[in-house]
Amino acid sequence: MMTISRTKTKEEVIEALHGVAAEMHDKMMKGKPPSMTLPVRTKKNIAFDKKLQVYKYGKKKSTRDATALGSARVLLRSLHITEFIEQMINSGKSSTLREMYYISEAWGNGKFSTQNESNNLAEDLEIVTKCIREDFKLRPEEDGARIIGNVTFEEKNRKGEWMRINCRDDVGDSGYGVPYNVESEKLRLVEEDVDFIMAVETGGMFDRLVENGFDEEARCALIHLKGQPARSTRRIMKRMSDEWNKPILVFADCDPWSFRIFASIAYGAIKTAHISEYLATNEATYLGITADDILAYDLPSDDLTKSDLGALESELSDPRFATGWWKEQINLMQEIGKKAEQQSLAKYGLDFVTDTYLPEKLGILGLSY
Amino acid sequence: MMTISRTKTKEEVIEALHGVAAEMHDKMMKGKPPSMTLPVRTKKNIAFDKKLQVYKYGKKKSTRDATALGSARVLLRSLHITEFIEQMINSGKSSTLREMYYISEAWGNGKFSTQNESNNLAEDLEIVTKCIREDFKLRPEEDGARIIGNVTFEEKNRKGEWMRINCRDDVGDSGYGVPYNVESEKLRLVEEDVDFIMAVETGGMFDRLVENGFDEEARCALIHLKGQPARSTRRIMKRMSDEWNKPILVFADCDPWSFRIFASIAYGAIKTAHISEYLATNEATYLGITADDILAYDLPSDDLTKSDLGALESELSDPRFATGWWKEQINLMQEIGKKAEQQSLAKYGLDFVTDTYLPEKLGILGLSY
Repeated sequence: MMTISRTKTKEEVIEALHGVAAEMHDKMMKGKPPSMTLPVRTKKNIAFDKKLQVYKYGKKKSTRDATALGSARVLLRSLHITEFIEQMINSGKSSTLREMYYISEAWGNGKFSTQNESNNLAEDLEIVTKCIREDFKLRPEEDGARIIGNVTFEEKNRKGEWMRINCRDDVGDSGYGVPYNVESEKLRLVEEDVDFIMAVETGGMFDRLVENGFDEEARCALIHLKGQPARSTRRIMKRMSDEWNKPILVFADCDPWSFRIFASIAYGAIKTAHISEYLATNEATYLGITADDILAYDLPSDDLTKSDLGALESELSDPRFATGWWKEQINLMQEIGKKAEQQSLAKYGLDFVTDTYLPEKLGILGLSY
Repeated sequence: MMTISRTKTKEEVIEALHGVAAEMHDKMMKGKPPSMTLPVRTKKNIAFDKKLQVYKYGKKKSTRDATALGSARVLLRSLHITEFIEQMINSGKSSTLREMYYISEAWGNGKFSTQNESNNLAEDLEIVTKCIREDFKLRPEEDGARIIGNVTFEEKNRKGEWMRINCRDDVGDSGYGVPYNVESEKLRLVEEDVDFIMAVETGGMFDRLVENGFDEEARCALIHLKGQPARSTRRIMKRMSDEWNKPILVFADCDPWSFRIFASIAYGAIKTAHISEYLATNEATYLGITADDILAYDLPSDDLTKSDLGALESELSDPRFATGWWKEQINLMQEIGKKAEQQSLAKYGLDFVTDTYLPEKLGILGLSY
């Protein structure tokens, strides 16, 4: 299966942005207050699409028009943002969401009063224009993932040249740093010689697997997720799954928050429901640590806190965990009242994870090596 | 000036570790309880060395001996750790501090009950043996800095081969990721063609300077500090300052916590007082954002919080800020009651920082370009 095409040209993005202004203009020409139509962005209008297995917006639309001061201000800001984005596209620039917030200082009545307002409006514009933030040249603050393994990318550098980078031979110990934009105009998936991709939650475990040579021995590429994965991290996994047709395995702590990391990789998240089809890798599999593992390997564990218990409870009614396997695991965790970290496998020495744990777990999935 | 030699061989490190066991052994042979002597690790025994301009431990020593249960446990753990480290050195392994904490599960009465205990003991051993954590093959969890610019390193990879990496030509947008060990057995500073090094606090500003081509235009290497800089980040700056004799400039938010980032780079921190001479770059200069800048450039700012005000007040009695210039800046900040972020320069557009702000600030330092 090929990735859903994400090849919007500059012109298409600018045209989509002009559409926002056009809706307002049309209304005014008809003597009506300018307006902007977008899906209702409440939880009630976000549904889990059982066929696609991702979160999607429902059909409810709302209209912002300039009859109230608050809405008028949002419309004004939308026009300023579209102009700012168009300037960036034309001059080959990008900006952080934080910079855009400060840029608005020059927008008079359109000035944002909090970063939250500017972030939300950027998401609104993604929804209305069917573009993505990367099309708008808006960057997040946080770093992307790191990758180590025998996979080769081409990244377009600042000078517009394509650089070829093999994530085993051309990088230092810290690996290949994934850029914020991993669409095909910036990053190409060129070559691979691996059997699967393993996404790892913590830096400590990522470094352990690298030091133990697990990527070479098990013929896989390792990705350090850095906690809740950035959009670019989820997108590059999706592309590797689609374009290279490789299994994606998620290796995380046994912890309700880590389960959510997995769910956002596999099924998308509410905040990015409008672009789930670009970000969610349905084919991803949760490898561990599981509640089963805590018992089977007698792992050092911590008691679940009140907030852990609350998170587990709400996962039981989360459609992303609506499988028999997840329900069993969550129920077992509630029963034993424990959570455990990936690195707790070190109880049995630094090689236990690669000599025993991962071979056993991968064997169950038919990925023996 | 050359870097203070950090070329401890494996054998020297192991010998130093054996010294810990030898002290205990000697005592027992004399019929006395085993003991370990180390500097008193309280704030009172850490002084700012005015000549060296770094924090140093004073002369007060304390002796832990096995006459109390708590101390006996610490001695037992020390022996386990030295054995664990020796095994790692001999097998070419390393481990995170977190892994060592879990490894101790197998140490019976020596098992750590909190991560804090194992971290502190690792620091104690650094002090007693005059080695550093990197000699012990103990790694932190967090990632190191990223570097972009025309500087070339050689990093020894997992296979023991030296890889040559130019931080302008051989890396993607995210730059060169600094490994946790930047001592000469792992990393060599090979070549540079820059006039200065600029350390940047936030990822957003680092990416801005990279996108605007500031490293090429101003002939500098850019380092992303990622907040409070890791040991490896401070160490590599120290080495670049010493071995390449380049000015180190720090570009951070105007915020009392950012001032502390600068102070830890230039003068060391209390937690690493025993290795200040390896980590602190006295030659570092604070470039901005300053309180002056908030006024001069009319930057968007936020009110100082109560905790900000407390931090500023304590900086006034911190020996690292005992210069007329810092006192003026801190007093001015208290007076205007404001702080400002680096990215607030975007008020005047995305190019203002590289077209106007940095040229003006560098001009004052005689680093025009």
